[in-house]
Amino acid sequence: MKYSFRNDYSEGAHPNILKAITDSNSEQLDGYGEDKYSLQAADRIRKELNFPDADIHFVSGGTQSNMLCIGAFLRPYESVIAAQTAHIEVHEAGAIEFTGHKINIYPGENGKITPEQIQYAVDFHYDEHMVVPRLVFISNTTELGTVYKKAELEAISAVCRKNNLLLYIDGARLGAALASEKNDLTLAELAKYADAFYIGGTKNGALIGEAVVIINQELKSYFRYNMKQKGALIAKGRIIGIQFNELFKDNLYYNLAGHANKMAMKLAVGLQAAGYKFLSEPESNQIFPILPDELIEKLYEKFEFYIWSKYDDRNSVARLVCSWATGEDAVDQFLGEL
Amino acid sequence: MKYSFRNDYSEGAHPNILKAITDSNSEQLDGYGEDKYSLQAADRIRKELNFPDADIHFVSGGTQSNMLCIGAFLRPYESVIAAQTAHIEVHEAGAIEFTGHKINIYPGENGKITPEQIQYAVDFHYDEHMVVPRLVFISNTTELGTVYKKAELEAISAVCRKNNLLLYIDGARLGAALASEKNDLTLAELAKYADAFYIGGTKNGALIGEAVVIINQELKSYFRYNMKQKGALIAKGRIIGIQFNELFKDNLYYNLAGHANKMAMKLAVGLQAAGYKFLSEPESNQIFPILPDELIEKLYEKFEFYIWSKYDDRNSVARLVCSWATGEDAVDQFLGEL
Amino acid sequence: MKYSFRNDYSEGAHPNILKAITDSNSEQLDGYGEDKYSLQAADRIRKELNFPDADIHFVSGGTQSNMLCIGAFLRPYESVIAAQTAHIEVHEAGAIEFTGHKINIYPGENGKITPEQIQYAVDFHYDEHMVVPRLVFISNTTELGTVYKKAELEAISAVCRKNNLLLYIDGARLGAALASEKNDLTLAELAKYADAFYIGGTKNGALIGEAVVIINQELKSYFRYNMKQKGALIAKGRIIGIQFNELFKDNLYYNLAGHANKMAMKLAVGLQAAGYKFLSEPESNQIFPILPDELIEKLYEKFEFYIWSKYDDRNSVARLVCSWATGEDAVDQFLGEL
Amino acid sequence: MKYSFRNDYSEGAHPNILKAITDSNSEQLDGYGEDKYSLQAADRIRKELNFPDADIHFVSGGTQSNMLCIGAFLRPYESVIAAQTAHIEVHEAGAIEFTGHKINIYPGENGKITPEQIQYAVDFHYDEHMVVPRLVFISNTTELGTVYKKAELEAISAVCRKNNLLLYIDGARLGAALASEKNDLTLAELAKYADAFYIGGTKNGALIGEAVVIINQELKSYFRYNMKQKGALIAKGRIIGIQFNELFKDNLYYNLAGHANKMAMKLAVGLQAAGYKFLSEPESNQIFPILPDELIEKLYEKFEFYIWSKYDDRNSVARLVCSWATGEDAVDQFLGEL
Repeated sequence: MKYSFRNDYSEGAHPNILKAITDSNSEQLDGYGEDKYSLQAADRIRKELNFPDADIHFVSGGTQSNMLCIGAFLRPYESVIAAQTAHIEVHEAGAIEFTGHKINIYPGENGKITPEQIQYAVDFHYDEHMVVPRLVFISNTTELGTVYKKAELEAISAVCRKNNLLLYIDGARLGAALASEKNDLTLAELAKYADAFYIGGTKNGALIGEAVVIINQELKSYFRYNMKQKGALIAKGRIIGIQFNELFKDNLYYNLAGHANKMAMKLAVGLQAAGYKFLSEPESNQIFPILPDELIEKLYEKFEFYIWSKYDDRNSVARLVCSWATGEDAVDQFLGEL
Repeated sequence: MKYSFRNDYSEGAHPNILKAITDSNSEQLDGYGEDKYSLQAADRIRKELNFPDADIHFVSGGTQSNMLCIGAFLRPYESVIAAQTAHIEVHEAGAIEFTGHKINIYPGENGKITPEQIQYAVDFHYDEHMVVPRLVFISNTTELGTVYKKAELEAISAVCRKNNLLLYIDGARLGAALASEKNDLTLAELAKYADAFYIGGTKNGALIGEAVVIINQELKSYFRYNMKQKGALIAKGRIIGIQFNELFKDNLYYNLAGHANKMAMKLAVGLQAAGYKFLSEPESNQIFPILPDELIEKLYEKFEFYIWSKYDDRNSVARLVCSWATGEDAVDQFLGEL
Repeated sequence: MKYSFRNDYSEGAHPNILKAITDSNSEQLDGYGEDKYSLQAADRIRKELNFPDADIHFVSGGTQSNMLCIGAFLRPYESVIAAQTAHIEVHEAGAIEFTGHKINIYPGENGKITPEQIQYAVDFHYDEHMVVPRLVFISNTTELGTVYKKAELEAISAVCRKNNLLLYIDGARLGAALASEKNDLTLAELAKYADAFYIGGTKNGALIGEAVVIINQELKSYFRYNMKQKGALIAKGRIIGIQFNELFKDNLYYNLAGHANKMAMKLAVGLQAAGYKFLSEPESNQIFPILPDELIEKLYEKFEFYIWSKYDDRNSVARLVCSWATGEDAVDQFLGEL
Repeated sequence: MKYSFRNDYSEGAHPNILKAITDSNSEQLDGYGEDKYSLQAADRIRKELNFPDADIHFVSGGTQSNMLCIGAFLRPYESVIAAQTAHIEVHEAGAIEFTGHKINIYPGENGKITPEQIQYAVDFHYDEHMVVPRLVFISNTTELGTVYKKAELEAISAVCRKNNLLLYIDGARLGAALASEKNDLTLAELAKYADAFYIGGTKNGALIGEAVVIINQELKSYFRYNMKQKGALIAKGRIIGIQFNELFKDNLYYNLAGHANKMAMKLAVGLQAAGYKFLSEPESNQIFPILPDELIEKLYEKFEFYIWSKYDDRNSVARLVCSWATGEDAVDQFLGEL
C-alpha cells in the first residue's frame, strides 16, 4: 500500500469526533440541524467569531455551500468576480452557472484576486446589456495553497464595500489558512471583512460537513428555505453538528490544521534543501513543488500524489497535501527518496 | 425527556455502522465514492438487485437524490407526473422546479398515483404550448405510509412503458415498504419495474446517505458530472459507502425496517383495539391514527409526535413513526395511556 | 377560404398602426426601447393609469412577459398561486418552472382564483420544507373569457396585501376585459390593486408586443437587466413603442376591444336564442358554447374554430373568438348556419 | 438632428418589407409561425442553404436565439467555448448562464476563436469535477467586424467534429459577413460547417426577427417546445415570416448588407487616407478607427457614434456602423470633417 499525499480527505475523522458520535448515538434528537449539538456547535463558532448575531448552518460539502450561498445571495442578473484559479470556476462542474449566475474571471496573482482586478470588473460592467458584478469569491487558503494576509483581505474588503459588492470566502481549508505561519488573521477578524463564508470540516478532520457563516444581516432571511430547495438540509443534522461541536472545543480545529501545515512545511523545507522550486510559495498544507519527471516516476513507486500541471519538457508541478493525520515518518520517508 | 415518535431519524446509526466507520478510520482511501467500501457496497446492492449493470451512486439526502435524478434525466420542457401528496410536490421547497421542471399533480388514492391518472396526464398534454410529461414519481412507502403491491407497480410500469415515461421511485422508506407485511415485492422485482430509484439509508439506520440506483442504460451517462454540479459528490464518500456496506450485509437493512414496522403495527393494533380509526391503512412504520384532541393533549405530556392535520372539530390526525431503534417499552407505555 | 373564429391574432394590425410604422420608417431612432415613440407610448399609458411613477416596458409576447416578471420579482424559494385554468399552468410549456418557481394551483371558479383559496395557500405553507407563496397570478379576461369585477379584484387585492403577496395580472386580453359590458373597472382602478401587470397588444390590434406595467416601487430596479437576460430587450424597440403609441391615442385600444366583444356578444345572443348553453358566461370576445357534434361538423364546412373540450357523448364545448377585425357579416353567416 | 453611425438598427425596415406587411394585413392566418408566409420564407431559406431538411424557426431577437439554442442543445453539465469578445460573454447580461451553462472563454484573435484554443479547452476538461465543453460559439461577422474565411471555418468545424463539439454561429450580421469583399463563403457552404446558426434580420433591414436554422438532425426534436418555454413562440408569427420571405426574394438580403458594407468601406478608405489606423481590419459594416479625442469631440457635434474603448491618453477607438439605409451623403459629410 503506497502512502498517499493526494489530499486531506484520505483518512476518516479525528478520534474525538468518532467518540462524540458514538456517545450520543442512542439519544433521540431533533432533525434538520435543530438538535442540541448543532445548536452548541453554532454557539461555539459564534463565540470564536465574536459575532453573537452570526447565522451558522451546517451543510454536507464545499460545492454545495458555494452554490447554495451564491444562489441565495444574488439576484438573477448578478455575477461573481473570481480569480481564474477559483474552485467555482474550474472544479465545480458548472455548479454556480447551474444556479443561473455568471462568473467573471480575472487572472489573480498567486491564486488571489486583486483589488485592482475587482475594481476593473466593476468599471467594465456599466449597462443593462451586461451582468452586474455583485459578489467577490475568494478561497483561503487559495487553490494554490497560499494564504491571505490581513492587509490583503482588508484591501479586498474595502474595494467591495466601496462598490456594494459582497465578499464570500470559500473556507474549505480555512483551518490551514488560520494555522499557517504566514497568517496574521484571527477567525474573528476575518469575519469582520466577509459577508459570508464557510468553515471547512471535511478537509480538516471531520467525516463530512462544512459550517456556513452568514455575517451580513441582509443575507440571512429564508436561508433554510434555500437550503431545503438545494437539497442541503440534512435530516440527521446531528451528524454535522456533533463534529463541529468537537472541532471547536479546545482549539482542536486549529491544532489539526497546524499539524497538517507542519508536515507540509517539513516536506517543503526538505524539497527546497534538495534544490527544488515551487509553483507558489509553500504556506499551508498544500505545496506545489516542481519536480523532474524521472524523480516523480521514482516517488510513484512508494507514494501517491497528483500532478498539477506540466512545467516543461522534463519537469512537472506536483501537488503534495498533508492532513491532520499525516504521519511524520511518511514525510521522512518521502524526503529520503529525493 | 419525552419519548419521541416524531420520525425515524431521531436516533443515530445502528451499532454495526458505527463500528465499521471506527474500524476503517485510519485507512487512507480514495475520495468521491471511489473507495473500496463504496465499491463493495455498490456490489452488494447490485447483487441484491440481480442487476449486474445497475449504476449505484451514494448521496447525502432524499431531496438531493430527487432533484439530482429528475434534473439529470429530463430535457428542459419535460415534466413529472406525481400524486398531490408526493414529497417533491409538498415538502421539498420547490427543489424540482429549481431544476426547471414542472410537476403535474393528480389526486392519487391512498398516496398512490393511479395508472388512469398517468394516462390522463399523457393524453391531456398534446402540443408545444404544454409541457411533455416524461417521468412518473412515486414513493414507496408512500407519504401516507402505504405500500405498493406488485400488481400496482406492474400496472404503473406498464402504463409508463406504453407512453415512453420513466418510472422513478423515492425510496426514502423503501426498507419499510419491503419489510411490510403487506408487501409482495422483492428489491430485485421492484428494480425491474423502475428506471431509477433510491434506497433510503437515513430513515433506516444510517447516519446519513441514500443510494441512487440507475437501471435504465440511457440514464447513466455523465451522472457523476450531474452529481458534482448539484453539490452531491461527497469528498469523503467513504462515509456513505461504509454504511451501505453494512446495511446490505446479513439482511440488516430488512431487519431494521422490520423492527420499525413491527413496533408501528403494535401501536396500530393497540389503537384499533381502543377504538380509533386511521387516515390511511397502517402498513409500515408510519401510522396516521385519528385521535380526540383531548387525548392528544394528554399524550403530549409524555410523548412527542406530529399532528398531520385537523380531522374535525374535536379530532386530529396524528402521525406516529417508529424506527429501527424504537423500544417496545415505549410502545407499551404509549398504549397504556390510551 | 373558411372564415376563422379561432383566435384574436389571425389578422394583422389596425391600419393606424401600420401607418405610424410606415410614416416613421426612415427616422433614425435609439434602440432598445429608448426611442421617442416608446417614450411617448409609456407616457400615454402612465397618464391612462394615473400613475406618473409606473414603469412601462415593451416586450414581444405574453409568455415572455409572465416568465420575465415572475422570474424578476421572486426569490428562488418563492412560488406563484394560480387557478388551475391559468395560462402559466397549462399553456406556457413550463416557462415559469424554467425560471425556477413552483406554481401552487387551486380550482378557482369560472377561471378565477378566490380569496379563500389564496388564504388557504398561504396557511398551508408554513415551514422551510415548503415553498413560500409570494405572488398571485390572475388573468383578466380569464382563460374562460370571464371578467373580474371591481369587488372581486378588491377582495383579492386585500387578501394579497394582508399576506404580503404580490398581485400580478396577465392582461393578454385586458382590452376585452375593460371593454366588456360586465366590467366596472377603469385601467387606473385596476392599477391600484395590482403590483404589476401587462397590457396585451398582440390580441388587440397590434402586430406584436405587450406593455409590462410595474406599479410597486420595489419591483422596478434592474428590470431592464432581467429583460436583457431573458432575451426580451428588443433592438428595434420602436416597433412595439410605435404600436402602443397608436393604441393609446383616442381610445383606440378600448374601441378595438369593444368591437371584438360586440361581435362575440352577437354570436352569444344568437346561440342562446337557438337554445345553446355555455361553459362559462359569455362576457368578452371569447365565448364557449356547448354544441352538438353534428352541428360542429356542419359549421366546420364554412368556419374555423377550436374545440375546447368534450362535453358529453354528443356535445362538445367550442371556443369562438372575435377580434378587432371580425366582420359582422361573418357573424351573421355563422348564426345563419345554426 | 445629428446623423447616427451608432448601429445598424437605427432605421425601420426596407420598403419591400413594409409593403408586404401592409398587403397581407387583412388576411386571416394561422398563428405561431404556421402561416403561409412563414412557411414560404422557410422554404426560400432552405433552398438558399441547399439543405431541404433544415429546420427553420423565426424568433424575435439575437439574445433570444442564443439562449434558446444553447439551452435546448446542451445537457446541464455541458458548456460553451467562446472568444472573450463573444456577444454571449459580454453583452447578453448572463443569458446563457441563466439557462444553466458555463461559457469557457479564450482570448481569440481578431474576435475569432482559434482551432488551437478549442482543442485546448477540450483537453483541459477531463473529469467530473469540470464541465464538459460541448458547443463552440462564433459570430460571423465577429463582434470586431471581422469575417470568417472558408478555411478558418473549415478548420474550426474539423476540430469540432473531431471532438464531438457542436458548432453554433451567431449570425446577427451574417448578411454583412456574406456580402463582405473578404468573404469567400456562400450561405450553403457555411451551413455545411455548422450544426445550427441564426440569420439576423433586425440588423439587416427587418423590423424585428431572426431565423434560427438547425442543420444537425439530432438537435431538431421538440425545439418548438423549447421556444414556447423560453417565451420565443410569437403568436402573430406572420410578422417575422413575412419579413424573411421578402429578404430572401431577389437577393435582397445580400444587397442590403452589401450597401451597408460599401458605405462602411468608403468611411474606412477615407479614414485610412487621412492617416488613421484601426483596432481590427475593416471588413464589414462595422469599423473601429482609432481617433484623436479632439477629433471625436468635433465629430460629435454633427454625428452620433459609440466609443468602443480608450486607446491611450489622447486617442480612443470609435465604432462606426453603417446600415442598409445609410446615405452616401452622410458618409461624405463625415469624411469631410476629418
